[in-house]
Formats: sequence, structure tokens, C-alpha cells
Amino acid sequence: MSVNARANPVLLLIDVQKTWSDPAWGPRNNESAEDNIAALLHWWRRHDLPRIIVQHHSKSPASRLAMGQPGCALRSEVTPEPGELLLTKSVNSAFIGTNLEDVLIANGWTDVVVVGLTTVHCCSTTIRMGANLGFKMSAVADAMATFDAKTLQGQTVPAEIMHQVELAALNDEFATILNTKDLIG
Amino acid sequence: MSVNARANPVLLLIDVQKTWSDPAWGPRNNESAEDNIAALLHWWRRHDLPRIIVQHHSKSPASRLAMGQPGCALRSEVTPEPGELLLTKSVNSAFIGTNLEDVLIANGWTDVVVVGLTTVHCCSTTIRMGANLGFKMSAVADAMATFDAKTLQGQTVPAEIMHQVELAALNDEFATILNTKDLIG
Repeated sequence: MSVNARANPVLLLIDVQKTWSDPAWGPRNNESAEDNIAALLHWWRRHDLPRIIVQHHSKSPASRLAMGQPGCALRSEVTPEPGELLLTKSVNSAFIGTNLEDVLIANGWTDVVVVGLTTVHCCSTTIRMGANLGFKMSAVADAMATFDAKTLQGQTVPAEIMHQVELAALNDEFATILNTKDLIG
Repeated sequence: MSVNARANPVLLLIDVQKTWSDPAWGPRNNESAEDNIAALLHWWRRHDLPRIIVQHHSKSPASRLAMGQPGCALRSEVTPEPGELLLTKSVNSAFIGTNLEDVLIANGWTDVVVVGLTTVHCCSTTIRMGANLGFKMSAVADAMATFDAKTLQGQTVPAEIMHQVELAALNDEFATILNTKDLIG
């Protein structure tokens, strides 16, 4: 694998929740993201490498990610198993309002491999902050997905462009960008 | 102005340093960014609203932003005046390794207007983290600039596309996106 297995790389699964198949979010890219996430999690479990599952609990009651909303539930592929840490967060960064930084430091885990949704919001923000805190971040491009967005001028930017451009912004500066096959192929 | 002047909005000037006119960075967009930043700073000074100037000091000696490198110097437009806070940082987020969060809280400053360079690295990361820490962030699109980047497939993404797509990612989720004329026009 491209990450250093001897460094005990952590698989950090961001917001792999049911809501993202709700058409209310609009068009998304990479419908294979959850399958690739499941394959990576399976591999990490088989090699007994550390896994941290992060679930978004919005504090806004109207949010589709508010606790108790059906879309807030974790997808079955990432149901935590014994020994797996489940963290909840209420903002984009998994490092804010959680003990993620402490957990990584206490265990000597310096390498973090990020998968999940969405590329441009919670994954990007967590990757940026992790890198700035001194962790060696990797992002698995084909195990992330995102949605169409609009420019200030009202033009729609297709989800795939949002995804690729955000990864180009992260590349080198914050993270190593990989695909699933680079890790477990 | 679009921000609430009664809330004492802080103008947060990110990395307005000489290096960004060095052709070594490659093609950039919005050559007017520094003029718009200067106009905003002038307006903020005239109205005696708070200003915080952030200067990047890379810890990598080879960086064009390492202390002592000519490009690390602040541009003359943002030379701090008495009473203006100058913070130095060594990572993208102006909230990491600085007392920015403490300063904002201690002064009751909840509204932060971000300008500077680059859009996709230090501005975006600071805006994301500020929003996640609970501050009301605004980004001034025409007072920011960024550079060409490459996708994983090696395709060049022009600086203007990087800029617009990053702002689309920030819009609504992390910040209100404005232009200079919305604030001081």
C-alpha cells in the first residue's frame, strides 16, 4: 500500500450516513464511493489497523443530519464493530468539538487516511485542519463524493468538477491524494 | 455595508506578502486583489473598525515564505499602523499556532471579513476553521487571488476556476461571499 502500514495508518471515515442518497441534495458524483469505503474498511479490519468512524449530528433541528432524522443514521457498511472508535461532531471539521486530536496523539497515530462525504465540505475541512495540526493526511479520491454547487454568478458547477478541483487544492499542500487501488489493489 | 458595522467586523488580512507577484508561483488570477485589499483596509481604518494582519512565516527554510526571504515581507499596502494587531503563523489556518481565537473572543468580535492570498489554501482554511469555531465569516471574492493547480490526472486548472470553485464550496456552508463594492461601494 502507498501509506506506510508500519506507521499504523488510521482510516478516518467521515459522515458515511444514509442522507447522501437523498435526492434533495441534488446531483452527486462518484456513486461508487460507499463501495470503495466498504472495501477499505474491510481491508483495514482484516489487517487490524486503526479505524475511527465519524458521524455528523447537526445541531440544527431542521437539518437532514440532525440526530433522529432517518438520514443521520450511519450506512450499514460502516456500522462500528467492537474496538472501533465512533466520534460524533456537529461541524465540518472532525477535529473541533471532539477528542480526535488527543486520540491520535495518545496512540502515536501520525498517518490519517480520509474517506467519506462530502469532498468539499467535511472531508476537505478535516484534511486541512489535520495537516495544519501536524498529521500526515491522505485523501482517497474515489472513496469520496460531493454535490453540484453554484458560483456567485449563479452558474452550476457539476459535482465531479467540485470534487476534482477541491482535490487539486488539497494536493501537495495538505494531503497525498490516492485511489482505493493504490491502497488495497 | 453588507456586514453589520455595529458588530465591529474584523478585517482579517491573510498573507498579503510580496511573494505573490513572483512568477515562480505560476499564473494567478485577479491582479486587482491587492488594490481591493488596500481600499478595504483604508475604509476599515477610516471607520476605526478592527484590523488583524496575518503574516505567514514558513518553517521550511527553502520556502519563499520563510522569514528573511524577500517574498516573506508584507506588501507596503498592509504595513501595520499603531493599534493594528500583527499575527504570524506557520500553517495555512490563522487559528493554529496563534492567539487569534482568544483575541476575537476577548474583544467580543464575532464577525470576521477575510481577504488575502491564496483563496484555495490559507484563506479557505482560515474561513472554514473560523466558521467551525463559531465565528460569522465573510470572504471578499475580489480581494483574494490564487494560482493555477493540477488535477490528479495532470490537467491544469486555471487560477480563476480554482478561485470560483473554492468560493462555491465555501458559499453558504462556511461564509457569506461578497465583493469589495458590497462593503465599501
